[in-house]
Order: sequence, then C-alpha cells, then structure tokens
Amino acid sequence: MNSTVTELSSAAGVASATGLDVAAYMAQLGRQARAAARVVARADTAQKNAALLLIADAIDAHRDLISRANEEDLAAGRQKGLDSAMLDRLALTAARIDNMIEGLRQVAALPDPVGEVTDLRYRPSGIQVGKMRVPLGVVGIIYESRPNVTCEAASLCLKSGNAVILRGGSESIHSNQAIAECIATGLKAAGIDAHAVQVVGTTDRAAVGELITMPEYVDVIVPRGGKSLIERISADARVPVIKHLDGNCHVYIDDRADEQKAVQIAVNAKTSRYGTCNTMETLLVAEGIAARVLPVLGEAYTQAGVELRACPQALALLKGAVPATEADWETEYLAPVLAVKVVTGLDEAMDHIALYSSAHTEAIVTEDYSRAQRFLREVDSSSVMVNASTRFADGFEYGLGAEIGISTDKLHARGPVGLEGLTSQKYIVLGDGQIRG
Amino acid sequence: MNSTVTELSSAAGVASATGLDVAAYMAQLGRQARAAARVVARADTAQKNAALLLIADAIDAHRDLISRANEEDLAAGRQKGLDSAMLDRLALTAARIDNMIEGLRQVAALPDPVGEVTDLRYRPSGIQVGKMRVPLGVVGIIYESRPNVTCEAASLCLKSGNAVILRGGSESIHSNQAIAECIATGLKAAGIDAHAVQVVGTTDRAAVGELITMPEYVDVIVPRGGKSLIERISADARVPVIKHLDGNCHVYIDDRADEQKAVQIAVNAKTSRYGTCNTMETLLVAEGIAARVLPVLGEAYTQAGVELRACPQALALLKGAVPATEADWETEYLAPVLAVKVVTGLDEAMDHIALYSSAHTEAIVTEDYSRAQRFLREVDSSSVMVNASTRFADGFEYGLGAEIGISTDKLHARGPVGLEGLTSQKYIVLGDGQIRG
Repeated sequence: MNSTVTELSSAAGVASATGLDVAAYMAQLGRQARAAARVVARADTAQKNAALLLIADAIDAHRDLISRANEEDLAAGRQKGLDSAMLDRLALTAARIDNMIEGLRQVAALPDPVGEVTDLRYRPSGIQVGKMRVPLGVVGIIYESRPNVTCEAASLCLKSGNAVILRGGSESIHSNQAIAECIATGLKAAGIDAHAVQVVGTTDRAAVGELITMPEYVDVIVPRGGKSLIERISADARVPVIKHLDGNCHVYIDDRADEQKAVQIAVNAKTSRYGTCNTMETLLVAEGIAARVLPVLGEAYTQAGVELRACPQALALLKGAVPATEADWETEYLAPVLAVKVVTGLDEAMDHIALYSSAHTEAIVTEDYSRAQRFLREVDSSSVMVNASTRFADGFEYGLGAEIGISTDKLHARGPVGLEGLTSQKYIVLGDGQIRG
Repeated sequence: MNSTVTELSSAAGVASATGLDVAAYMAQLGRQARAAARVVARADTAQKNAALLLIADAIDAHRDLISRANEEDLAAGRQKGLDSAMLDRLALTAARIDNMIEGLRQVAALPDPVGEVTDLRYRPSGIQVGKMRVPLGVVGIIYESRPNVTCEAASLCLKSGNAVILRGGSESIHSNQAIAECIATGLKAAGIDAHAVQVVGTTDRAAVGELITMPEYVDVIVPRGGKSLIERISADARVPVIKHLDGNCHVYIDDRADEQKAVQIAVNAKTSRYGTCNTMETLLVAEGIAARVLPVLGEAYTQAGVELRACPQALALLKGAVPATEADWETEYLAPVLAVKVVTGLDEAMDHIALYSSAHTEAIVTEDYSRAQRFLREVDSSSVMVNASTRFADGFEYGLGAEIGISTDKLHARGPVGLEGLTSQKYIVLGDGQIRG
C-alpha cells in the first residue's frame, strides 16, 4: 500500500483494454466470488465486523493514495469534457472519505441479519419448523460515477454475508481500484478471502454484459444509476435485478387536510432536494381545499424557483404557472419543476396515481381517518405515507441503517433495501427421528 | 350451470383452434385480470372467504357436470394414447372432488395475509414506519394434467388478494372449464369480479408464450409440472418465476447418529413415496457408522424393491447393489432407485451436497450438537433438517395450510410457498406533518 497510484492500479489488476478475453476474465471473477461466498457466508459476526473496521482503518491510512487515484480520474474526466455535475459526483473530497470511513463503522455497528431464526414452532408431527436468514450468495453491483458507492456497497454485502462483484463507471476506475485495495487489505487482515469483494478491473463495456448473464456465478444484480442504464440491464439480465426505474412521486392534499401540515409537506416534498428519487413530482389537490392552499403554495414554490405546470383549474389559482400537458403527469423531472392537478377527491387522486405513478412513494395529507386508511391500503406503491413528506422514503430514515438501493418491484425486496434485502431465508426443521406417515 | 358439458364449455369460452388471434386473446385476459386485481386486492377477508365457500358449494352442486367434463377429457386422452399415469393424474374421482371442496374450505379458514402490518416503530424524526403485507397483483399459473390444481391455485390466489390466469394442460381443458364455471359462479355470488380467476380457453401452445411475456399484465408466473416445462418457461419468461427444477435431496448419516433414528429416517425419506420432489435421492453415510447401518438399510431397501447404486465402499456393505456412476450423484430418480456414498465425515458430506444438490431439501442425522449447527448454517438449501425425514418438506407439514409450489430460488419465496409467498410488502409511514430536515 506504499506503492504509487500507477503501481497500485496495476497490482489491483486494471486489465488492458486490448487483448483481454472479457468473458474468460468475468468468469474467473465469478468463480472466485462463488468460492468466496461460501467463506463469507460462514464468517461469524465478529469476523465480519473486524473486517469492516479494518477496511475503515485501511482507508484512513491511505487517504493520500485514494486522493491521488481520484485526481487521476478527475484529470482524465476534465480532459474528456465531463460536465461539472459529473465531476462533482466523481470527486472524493476529504469529507467524502470521512463519510466512507464513518459508513463502514456504522455498518459494523448494525445487527448481523445472518442466522436469525424466526417463527420456530412445533408442528403436530413433533418437528420444529422455522426460518433462518441466509445470504443471497454473490451480488453484482453496477453503478456510474460515484466511487464512494464501491465502499458502501461492499460494506453492506460483506455484513450480509455475500460476496460481491463491483462494476463502477470507467471514469472512476482508478479511484475504485484504490478503494478496492484498501478493502482487500482489510479483508486479508481479518482472515477473509479477499475475493469476497472484487472490483472489475476492465473498462470494457462487455464486462457488464457478462456480469448480468452468469447465473451460475451471480445471484442478483443491483444497478445504481440513471433510468436508461437500469432499463438496459433489466432487459438483458439473466439474473434477478433489484431496482427502481423512476420516482414519479405524488402528494395528495385532501379537503380534510390540516392546511398548515399540507403546505409544509408539499413544500418540503418538492424543494428539499430536486435530484432525489423520493422528491414529489406531481401535487394533487382536492377541489374543496384548492383555493385555500394553492395560492400559498404557489408563492412558496415561486420563491424557491420551482416552475409550475398546472391543470386548468390549478392554473387559475397559481400565479405564473403554465398549462400542463399529458407528458407532465408521466415525468420524473429531477429538477425544480412541479406538475399540479386539482381532483374531485380521494378516488380521482388514487385513479391518477394508479395510472401515472412509478410505484415509488405516495403521500396523502388528511385528518380523515377512513380516507387515510383507504389510501394506505389501496395505493400500490413501495412506500405509502399519511401526513409525512415523501422525502422520508430512505433507508436511513426508515431505520435500516443504510441502503443499497430502492426497489419498486414486487418480488423480494420492496422500498428501501438494506441488509435484510440482501438476504433470503431457508426453512430449518429440527426433529428427533420423526418420519412422515 | 344446468347446461350440457358442450354448452358449458362454449359458454366458458373454449376458443376454437383456428382463426384465434392468441396474442390479442391473451392481452384481453391480461387487461381483465389487471382490472380485477384492484378489486380483489381491496376485497375484505369476509368477502374473500364467502367467495371461497360459495365456490365450494358450486362445485358440490355441480359434481355431475364436472364428472361429465372430466369423462370427455379422459375419453379423448385414451384415444390419444395417454399412459395410465397420465390418465390417473387427469381423473377427477369423487374423492378428488371431495378434496377440492375440502381444500377450498380449509383455505377459507386460513388467516388472511393481506393488510398485516409488522414492525411499526417510531423513528427519531417522529414518523412511524412499518410494513404492510399486500397482494402481488396478477399471478399466472401454468400446469400440466391435474385439473384439481385449477381449484387449489385459484383458492390460494384469491385468498391472498391476487387475480390469477390459469393455463392447464390441453388434455384437461373440459375439466378445467367446468371447474372455472363453478369458480365464476362463486365469485359472482360473493360480488367479486369473475375476471379475478380466468382459465385460458384455448389449447394453442402460443398462449403460454404470451402469458409469460406480458409484464404489463402479469406480475409472477408459477409453473407446476415436469422439469422440461419449467426450464422452458424460466428461459423465456419476461416476468419473475417462482419455481424449482429438481429435488435431488440428500440424507447424511453422521457417525454420531442414533442408529435407530438413522435407519428410520433413511427408509422413510426414500420409500414413503417415490415420485415426490422431497424424496431422498442420494444417501451419504459417514465411514465410521457405515458398517453398522448400511447392511440394515440395504435389507430394508431391497425388501421395498429399491435399486441401490453405490460407491465402492458402500458396495461392499450392500447386498445386490450396483456400482454408481457420476450421473447417479446428479439424478433425481423419482423412482425406486437410490444412490449411496460413504464419506469421511461432515465436511465431505457438505462438499458433496454443495456440488450435486438441487438446493431443495437436505437432512443430517446426528446427536452431535456442533455438527447439527454447522449443517443447519452451512448447507445452502431451501429446507435443511436435523433428525427428520426430507419428506416433511411440504407446505401442509410446515403449517402453511396449503402450498402453491416449492421454490429453490433465493429471491422472494424459498421452500414451500403458501399464501405469504403470494404476497409482497410495502412500507407505510404514519406522520403528523413531519418534513425532512
């Protein structure tokens, strides 16, 4: 770990672009991951926590190395003409390195999900049947520019007893390799097979195609990034994918809402951050309350610089709004833009959500008990809220400790995915010689 | 329901083989199922139970009709030269009709999984976060000859709040349509959209291809039948599939086993039924106990008519056994054949299982605490047992009430799949105006 960046990268195995047999290389990573998965699945809690803390120490001890590798990526990025948002995501500032270290220590402090036995009950036959939580096996993570994901994802996979193959963006390859070296150092120091965490060492895009079509070596893929990346991966994968495509989130202000809560939530859900998947993109307002809340909200949004696209009824109540088109109901803006629609009441709101929502997060603001119950029961999204901002849809806020992503699919994990989403269960049966009649 | 079989079948919509646009027909079933899914997801427990009991009544009232439809299928099957095992699976005897009725009443008596809220806790922000159990949406079931599956599968989907599209074997089309008519009668009487349960009315095989590639209308596929059917469906599906391919189950007799329990379990696991997926196919015996248990077991198997294929060491201890080949370790016989291997101990047994098992069910027989714990933790199968027969791997035996199938996959449901496996969860957030800082 005292080597220069160049030496480090080559030691970590950045494969040369020319002449590499990508399929053979990925199969090798796959075989190594499969073997390491058995080791890390067996590793006890103390050993996994020790590894996480040793990785944190290694990162702390090698900040300079990581920064230099990151400088190399940033320089290449500037030369390639990456925009400032991309360069910002790519940058590993001292504060971000601190966050990586802190994140590792937090994951070490989380309860170990593996081995938890639930619902162990005697059956009439005399056997005891229960469920034991177990790792998934090998997880493949595909992400774009942010190199800190390397560390976050590795820590969650390790704690949940999985081996992981990480494939970051080509623009962050040196940063990722430097972090990978620190991870390997920590794993080895803890006596865990370093193949438990492998970073793909080639920037060849064919590596992604291989990673998502090796069911013999990879049990699940978690893609993190833009919608087009995730759509492409989902379409081509021969392995289950934990994912969400869109966060077209709605807040519905019912005519029995507390006006103050309604305004507070609708402002927060839109303006606290624009680029997050749990940000509200369409506001639905019951016609009975629209005249009271929309002018106030209009002012707040205008002050915050939010562009409003409104249905005809809302248009009359919102200064400076422009007419909404059909496309506005379908769009995740990820920007200071909001679609606003006046509806007759709860049923029209839920119909609108059923038609346009991406099933990520929806909230109702109401003081009416029965309407709140109906919204909770009938809205088919991964998070459904009453009198709270959609911005709470997040693994930390939900108490998962950390999240690997958010899933809007119905099978397996749904909503923010933490350690539990990276595990499965098996049935265990404890008998005393029982046979079946 | 007083019509003749022919009238009934045409009313239920057996589509003519010629001139049907299968894609358009399946899309229509899909749209109807999607709409009905919202209705049945909202239906309360009393309404769903009423429907199940009314379906049971309709089947009871129309036994003759079902029998005549089944006779028609049996006659066609005999003419097509179906073998006796196929004809047996196809036959709806009076006892099997009784079982269908009893099964419906049992499912009505099971607790409703939908709407159950768990882990509802206050978070530091003041919001309460919990999980609510919800239906998956639309389930597609693809099965072969047994027409009673129509009723079983429909009842489980209905109770779990899902709409279902059922595609049975072409040889049972009339039986399935007669049962479907009874189901529709029950649903209508309970005030539930009859499209909640639809039986595909064409025997055109293209219907299966459509059903498994309509993610907009179908949320999950459950195939029931032979391995080749399930492999084909898994390869082509654009929708998640809940399945298992093989049941290559193992019993390992440790050298610290109680000999009596060992013999009892090893005999039961093989001989209680040969055609079930939880039947033992390979017996592993520790060398320290082989000389004591194998001769006894050999006698028992020979008496039961089980052919033994043994490794060289086992061969010497088993009268009449033949040498095993590599293929024997990989084979699910589904027949009175057993592979037997002597191993040095627990580690070799677990290595053998890791290499050859289909991850369905494995059992250890031992009185050694630490070895039992290691086996439970390290064997990566959907059911792992200590001192019990593999034949217990079954939804009824596990207390699920009923099962739609068994899954050896790691994502979503694993092991016997009952009502819970037909549901998902969503996060619910209960606030009082909270916004995110």
